[in-house]
Amino acid sequence: MKENLKKKAGLTETFLLNELKNCSTSDSLREIMQYAVLNGGKRLRPVLLLSVYELFDSNIEKAVPYAAALEMIHSYSLVHDDLPSMDNDDLRRGKPTCHKQFSEFGAILAGDALLNLSFETMLKYAKEFPLERALSAMACIGEASGAKGMCAGQMSDMEQSVSDFESLCKMYRGKTGALLKAALVSGGILGGADSDTVRLLEQFADKIGLIFQIKDDVLDVTADEKTLGKPVFSDEKNQKITFVSQYGITQCEQLIDTYKNEALEMLDSLEQTIGKNGSADFLRKLTVYMAERNY
Amino acid sequence: MKENLKKKAGLTETFLLNELKNCSTSDSLREIMQYAVLNGGKRLRPVLLLSVYELFDSNIEKAVPYAAALEMIHSYSLVHDDLPSMDNDDLRRGKPTCHKQFSEFGAILAGDALLNLSFETMLKYAKEFPLERALSAMACIGEASGAKGMCAGQMSDMEQSVSDFESLCKMYRGKTGALLKAALVSGGILGGADSDTVRLLEQFADKIGLIFQIKDDVLDVTADEKTLGKPVFSDEKNQKITFVSQYGITQCEQLIDTYKNEALEMLDSLEQTIGKNGSADFLRKLTVYMAERNY
Repeated sequence: MKENLKKKAGLTETFLLNELKNCSTSDSLREIMQYAVLNGGKRLRPVLLLSVYELFDSNIEKAVPYAAALEMIHSYSLVHDDLPSMDNDDLRRGKPTCHKQFSEFGAILAGDALLNLSFETMLKYAKEFPLERALSAMACIGEASGAKGMCAGQMSDMEQSVSDFESLCKMYRGKTGALLKAALVSGGILGGADSDTVRLLEQFADKIGLIFQIKDDVLDVTADEKTLGKPVFSDEKNQKITFVSQYGITQCEQLIDTYKNEALEMLDSLEQTIGKNGSADFLRKLTVYMAERNY
Repeated sequence: MKENLKKKAGLTETFLLNELKNCSTSDSLREIMQYAVLNGGKRLRPVLLLSVYELFDSNIEKAVPYAAALEMIHSYSLVHDDLPSMDNDDLRRGKPTCHKQFSEFGAILAGDALLNLSFETMLKYAKEFPLERALSAMACIGEASGAKGMCAGQMSDMEQSVSDFESLCKMYRGKTGALLKAALVSGGILGGADSDTVRLLEQFADKIGLIFQIKDDVLDVTADEKTLGKPVFSDEKNQKITFVSQYGITQCEQLIDTYKNEALEMLDSLEQTIGKNGSADFLRKLTVYMAERNY
């Protein structure tokens, strides 16, 4: 499990390193973009994309540019979320956030440029796939990161419009769920999944998204800052409504367990739909890992 | 001339209005996005794209989504440029800037979402064209708006790294030239221009970009705020190096005239390359208009 995870994250890391080397005609802009992306992140979204793609095609290298594009989007969103007028965070993965390390305008522009670069990258490598598939994967990722997905979720979060379980779930579906879902679904689309398989992947992704977010809320109060690589109790500090503030830690752990079991059942169906091509064993392990991670 | 200009801007306006109606699951985010885009802008970039496209295909409606996507990118760049940590402008086209009217986080997120929406829009309408062409046009626009184009130009501007004519030109080529060029070139690509024609369009675009920017600098000191719709003397206030601060108004007017004549000559060559298909008459009038505009 760990070796496989490392391999997928490593392929993404190498690609990002190369792609960012000549990403800008401005030296200072490039430096901020590199700082924002090459920061020891877990590369969870790329790993998810590559793990689903692997169900259809063992040559996962082909899908790495799309995996890396997801990480660029994720990185840009963190840079902008950390800004003074947003979450106003000074630390990210134990290091100064971009606007602290460089400048506020630099952080804004590097974020913009990273979102832009994600599309540039996907377009550049589209010809590795049947073009229809590449377009469909880009559209899936584009919808997830935009005003119907991640940006909308972040807006709800900032407006503190979350007041109950339903609005909390809606906010999370946008803020983190949309991109996680796009990772899993676009991996399937690139691999050539049919519409039934895409639907199953979407359902599986909804569970994975909830597991991820509830775990994130739990870790914010149970982990220590060093292991987590970011400040703990930040939700409480910002008086945010979270799964933990609503349900308490014990019930959150139970929810994670329930969703984990439901996700594992879905993987059985997925395996049957895809047929002999691929085994979902790695996705099973990944599901358990996400439910049990401690950082 | 005016009717034709109005028609192209109007087609873009209608498309933008419709596309922004359901652009977000967040009501407040959508409101800011609409405010940022539907603001009475001249729609210059869309008009340029459609005017070149018209040389190849009289059915310009087909290319409107790409024209509108350019305007989304232009609008997002204005929203972010106006932010307190960037140019810190309170007025844009006579109205409060986004962060003044709404909130700073709202302005940042609406900008992000507009950049994202531009790619979503181009992807959604890609199938109207041979896919290779659509991909190539998207790549052209994507490169222009990113870290090798507009974002890099804005970074140079913010860093005040401009010290002489060469670095001034480089900054402008990024900040405004790149997107103007992409408008002209992508219009050709969508229309099916061959590589010789694309090269001519690029050269023509370089001249148009210079005309536009020198004129912008001149208007900043010669126009009145009401006609221009934005504060005048803002460059002087921000102690920026501009064409005017470097060369004075008279020499700037001469430069504009020289570039105008060079651009018009290039249109003759362009017409010959394209052959009987299209007349560059409207592009000629547009070139003169850009050199002589007073707002």
